[in-house]
Amino acid sequence: MRTSIATVSLSGSLTEKLDAAARAGFDGVELFENDLLASPLTPEDIRARCADLGLRIDLYQPMRDVEAVPEAEFARNLRRARHKFELMRRLGADTVLVCSSVSPQAVDDDALAAEQLARLAGLAAEYGIRVAYEALAWGRHVSTYDHAWRIVETAGHPALGTCLDSFHILSRAFGPADLEGIAAIPGEKIFFLQLADAPLLAMDVLQWSRHYRCFPGQGGFDIAALVRHVLATGYDGPLSLEVFNDVFRQAEAGPTAVDARRSLLLLQEAVGKAILPDPVVPTGVAFAELVTPDAEPLADLLGALGFTRTARHRGKPVALWEQGDARILVNTGPAARRDGPRLAAIGLESPDPAGAARRAEALLAPVLPRRRAPRDAPLDAVAAPDGTELFFCATGRPDLPDWRADFADTGLPPARADIRGIDHLALTQPWHHFDEAALFHRGVLGLDAQESVDVADPYGLMRSRAVTNADGSVRIALTVGAAPTDDTVHAQHIALATDDVVAAARRFRDAGGRLLPVPANYYDDLAARFEFADGELETYRDLGILYDRDAHGAFRHCYTRTVGRVFFELVQRDGGDGGDGGYRGYGAANAPVRLAAQHTARALTGG
Amino acid sequence: MRTSIATVSLSGSLTEKLDAAARAGFDGVELFENDLLASPLTPEDIRARCADLGLRIDLYQPMRDVEAVPEAEFARNLRRARHKFELMRRLGADTVLVCSSVSPQAVDDDALAAEQLARLAGLAAEYGIRVAYEALAWGRHVSTYDHAWRIVETAGHPALGTCLDSFHILSRAFGPADLEGIAAIPGEKIFFLQLADAPLLAMDVLQWSRHYRCFPGQGGFDIAALVRHVLATGYDGPLSLEVFNDVFRQAEAGPTAVDARRSLLLLQEAVGKAILPDPVVPTGVAFAELVTPDAEPLADLLGALGFTRTARHRGKPVALWEQGDARILVNTGPAARRDGPRLAAIGLESPDPAGAARRAEALLAPVLPRRRAPRDAPLDAVAAPDGTELFFCATGRPDLPDWRADFADTGLPPARADIRGIDHLALTQPWHHFDEAALFHRGVLGLDAQESVDVADPYGLMRSRAVTNADGSVRIALTVGAAPTDDTVHAQHIALATDDVVAAARRFRDAGGRLLPVPANYYDDLAARFEFADGELETYRDLGILYDRDAHGAFRHCYTRTVGRVFFELVQRDGGDGGDGGYRGYGAANAPVRLAAQHTARALTGG
Repeated sequence: MRTSIATVSLSGSLTEKLDAAARAGFDGVELFENDLLASPLTPEDIRARCADLGLRIDLYQPMRDVEAVPEAEFARNLRRARHKFELMRRLGADTVLVCSSVSPQAVDDDALAAEQLARLAGLAAEYGIRVAYEALAWGRHVSTYDHAWRIVETAGHPALGTCLDSFHILSRAFGPADLEGIAAIPGEKIFFLQLADAPLLAMDVLQWSRHYRCFPGQGGFDIAALVRHVLATGYDGPLSLEVFNDVFRQAEAGPTAVDARRSLLLLQEAVGKAILPDPVVPTGVAFAELVTPDAEPLADLLGALGFTRTARHRGKPVALWEQGDARILVNTGPAARRDGPRLAAIGLESPDPAGAARRAEALLAPVLPRRRAPRDAPLDAVAAPDGTELFFCATGRPDLPDWRADFADTGLPPARADIRGIDHLALTQPWHHFDEAALFHRGVLGLDAQESVDVADPYGLMRSRAVTNADGSVRIALTVGAAPTDDTVHAQHIALATDDVVAAARRFRDAGGRLLPVPANYYDDLAARFEFADGELETYRDLGILYDRDAHGAFRHCYTRTVGRVFFELVQRDGGDGGDGGYRGYGAANAPVRLAAQHTARALTGG
Repeated sequence: MRTSIATVSLSGSLTEKLDAAARAGFDGVELFENDLLASPLTPEDIRARCADLGLRIDLYQPMRDVEAVPEAEFARNLRRARHKFELMRRLGADTVLVCSSVSPQAVDDDALAAEQLARLAGLAAEYGIRVAYEALAWGRHVSTYDHAWRIVETAGHPALGTCLDSFHILSRAFGPADLEGIAAIPGEKIFFLQLADAPLLAMDVLQWSRHYRCFPGQGGFDIAALVRHVLATGYDGPLSLEVFNDVFRQAEAGPTAVDARRSLLLLQEAVGKAILPDPVVPTGVAFAELVTPDAEPLADLLGALGFTRTARHRGKPVALWEQGDARILVNTGPAARRDGPRLAAIGLESPDPAGAARRAEALLAPVLPRRRAPRDAPLDAVAAPDGTELFFCATGRPDLPDWRADFADTGLPPARADIRGIDHLALTQPWHHFDEAALFHRGVLGLDAQESVDVADPYGLMRSRAVTNADGSVRIALTVGAAPTDDTVHAQHIALATDDVVAAARRFRDAGGRLLPVPANYYDDLAARFEFADGELETYRDLGILYDRDAHGAFRHCYTRTVGRVFFELVQRDGGDGGDGGYRGYGAANAPVRLAAQHTARALTGG
């Protein structure tokens, strides 16, 4: 199917919007009138530029407050329409969107609406133009798609059809039955299909629509169900995105367009209209890679945590540190930045690394060179929206290239194994692309996205959303700061799984490691909320161990001091052996205390 | 009356919050439990610090999900409460807030709720503590203040009273009658009064409360009416602010606390409980002052606009440019920043400059030195929240100091007078303090705040709100960018009033001035929307004149290129002589086109 995007969904000048849409692979655009008005390009320039970019102008939009008005008013509207039809001829656009009227002058008279829309369509036909009439959810007299269709049907003009919009339909729909009326519309009378998702908010529908729309799969609507109904009518026009969103208005057009197109590809897959390589769900974390200009502070930290430097890369300044199944690469190569260690790459165990990469590529993830250096083992890798490199690995599988082949053993003794493996990874997301990140991990990697939670930092409200595989062996917490400026403020972290967080924390401290101190007040509150064995709480207080509990088990966790942009967490999930997977969360209830403690530590030591 | 603020209303560490509250002049705080838990200070430290700062801990908050639960659960709640009462003894806090339960375990049984709350109060009394029971608007069984009061009355325990919260009451109130039940509560049983305003949004009340509360006078609730009802009962506790707001969470605590306290002072004035100096509404704009490191580009611009440099300051590098009643100071003194001209000060004509300054000072505006230099005429001046200096002037009034006395005439010939005066000034506001700015101009200066409007910039949605005096001789448009990072992106501007914008624009251009080019597409759209005389539209197109119309008249305006952070607008308001004041707006409908044109100009020329 052809895909299209409304220029209002992207930021920047019209030129920037068109370029971004074309680069992301869209076939066409809906040209939003204000974008045209604000552009220094003539209609002929715009037409030529679209042609050069391989974009059709699928829709000119919107014409407002046209129908069901007194005759004198309608005559003025026809005059206005004639101007717009002339403009559309210059643009080479053949379909115009007319929204149901919100004007106080409009009367509740379907026959008049039909009669005037037919006259408008008659004028349009002189220009070879089709009119697509759409019910706004807040239209004055016409606010449902079936009502709009009845008027179109009554008008009975070949140049008049309807436009269906998922937001206007689903924001008013209360069940699947509300979509059944679509079957009554002949496919050739559906002139256009606009798609937008939205989070399920109980709020004024106009505000909801203007500020909170998002791309399909990022909100709470069942867009696929709607599209299936529309396709069943025989509709063969484009799937077109029309999203008004305060965040996208600020974001760079290029990444937004890619995000948008990826959402349409996934939607097409969901309705059986796109053949994408199947998802290959990762089965574990092979490694986490930190890049740093100076390996010393990380070496001290990893050593105190009980890791051993087991191997080094044969051709590059990369060391492999291991403990249990936890593997951490420390890279002091040219990608290192002056602001200290950061989490730059994740190795994901994959049943089919090449297949995983093919799906990622089909879903517009940038593919990274298969070999980082000429002699390296070939590795399938892509970049996530936040820039993190994702390597699809097959550790220890003789039939496939193994990333470990590039490493030579150091011969150092094995680690002490307080740590079993990596419990989860926490990645800071660029502010404007939080919803994109969740859709990427879900759609591209086949992970499940959990509910988004708000977390109070002393300097703003953060949001966090985890993506996981079914058995919890891959857990990634995606976190976003309170404001666009926070991209670099909040650290990323690696949470290490242990069966005895007390022992692990103690040995870390005995080895010279510094744990994040937690205020005594926190423990007084724990004592009020839970009952503990004698001395247990004193131990937690001493080590800075935080405690939480859900229906599945208990959670104990503590934190190292931050180095550069990275810190480590030690995590003990209880109840996991009982078969229900144990505690499910990430200690969100404790996050405000942890974040405040990190601010305190930073203020005291600058570290 | 005593004033208090909940620590959750301010950002930062507990120490920062307490400092900010004390510096703004609050008498006490509500200590939010999470702020205590996250603080490294012991309860005794906090008590001592509050005492040092002159702050009482008026309330410890909140205790949740206490009442109307099975006995075993209630026993656990009492255990938890005992811990908290011990903590409160260490803090020296004597009132605790208990919110109506939202727990699924709570049963709908007022008698049980009353009985358990009485037992809780009995325990509290042992510690000298009072329990204030409050109905959350989303409480499971108790969600209205009169319901909460009936339970308190039934319980009949002297240590149990009620807490009234303006948000919880007014978010559910549909008319003044809903407040009449307050009279039934004896004042001494109202243990606490929490105040928050909110914009009138149709949305889920829990989300509304958690993210959109604001300070009294910044939203849509009639807080004063509520407070009058409460005071009529004999309530003599503090007026306390409890505001959850995503923006305040990010903003610096100091300015937020000042904003908060100012809102309470104005509220006290509204209910007759504060004697503030009367507002002195400004009657005109005496001057606008631009500071710049390099006077040349501005001199060229002002010269082309028809201004004459009529005077220079006797002691400082400040020139006075005049035309009609428009006066612009160009200051090349030390306050100039390298990024070019900015609008740094406004002179407001005042019937009583000293009185205006006294009110501003009473409302916590920083007072500026009366004389900038030893020989200068004394001037009353304060700083607005955005840092703009506001001078209260009495131009040409023999009985009062005149700012012009500091200037010596240049003897240059008078200006040509295309320009009548200053139509309005547009000031960019710091992102976190947009609501504060409107309240400041309303409360301190006595201006009227107009509706806030959204304006689409190509790179994000801006908001703009005008404050004006009754006859429109003072009009200030307060504008805020789409994100915290936008503080410095958007330019400020001075709009100059003319009776013939075409002539003024033409002469400006003939004198070498550069007008902002407006896309031809905009004029094609104007032709579709309005009818113009022959040639009129061509003239507008040629000069970049934009057009709008409202019920009161027409509006024609055009823009100069931007210099540094400043540009000028030429404005012609028609219909003004008819007595209704003419066109009322600021051309918001044209703002997206203007903003896009400015981006285009910047991209082309860097200017």
